[in-house]
Amino acid sequence: MTQVTDDAQAPPRLRIRIVFGEDAMLGPGKIDLLERIRDTGSIAAAGRTMAMSYKRAWSLVEEMNAAFRDPLVESTRGGARGGGARLTEAGGTVLANYRELEEIMAEAGRSRLGVIRSMLRDIPEGK
Amino acid sequence: MTQVTDDAQAPPRLRIRIVFGEDAMLGPGKIDLLERIRDTGSIAAAGRTMAMSYKRAWSLVEEMNAAFRDPLVESTRGGARGGGARLTEAGGTVLANYRELEEIMAEAGRSRLGVIRSMLRDIPEGK
Repeated sequence: MTQVTDDAQAPPRLRIRIVFGEDAMLGPGKIDLLERIRDTGSIAAAGRTMAMSYKRAWSLVEEMNAAFRDPLVESTRGGARGGGARLTEAGGTVLANYRELEEIMAEAGRSRLGVIRSMLRDIPEGK
Repeated sequence: MTQVTDDAQAPPRLRIRIVFGEDAMLGPGKIDLLERIRDTGSIAAAGRTMAMSYKRAWSLVEEMNAAFRDPLVESTRGGARGGGARLTEAGGTVLANYRELEEIMAEAGRSRLGVIRSMLRDIPEGK
């Protein structure tokens, strides 16, 4: 969550992207967006926390809803302004499985990642 | 190696990217380039097989050589024209570890990836 601009010394992070087909993929951007929609109850608010335009956030949600059999995000029409959004059960399942995938993969790849890290010019400390 | 343009039915593929720091990362593009430099003995020829400009291929090699303590690619001055390139020992080690990382992670993530795949609109067959 914290914005670290000087992260040259940070340990390598893994970014995982699942490619379904031509131009259709699920990666850290969409997953972060899902998580923030869950937390903020709004596509616009979720996008703002990622410095993402409203249009871009909507477009990513539409891509995800089109790619999956059940939509991952649905609008809520409860409030006076009625502009909210929330994850569906499918959205929660995809988010949870992706986060587990990240953890499992980081753990499984630890030793190979360690070899690559040890060869970097500035050896990052920690983890 | 084969160019499949209609891969909507292909099983999801994983793309892994290792982020070292701001703007410094190692992903499928650089790794494919390393592999093709190894196979072709030339940065230009390797780039061509990826439809990548000479300038772009050189720029990626320079980024990699700057990020690692030992360069991953070195020029060879053997021939009459002397324009070849090859992987160093460090380059071979990074390439091998990254490919192993991909295999290990795909295997470790198989069940979570299967859950996500089963929720896609067009259920891909196979693997």
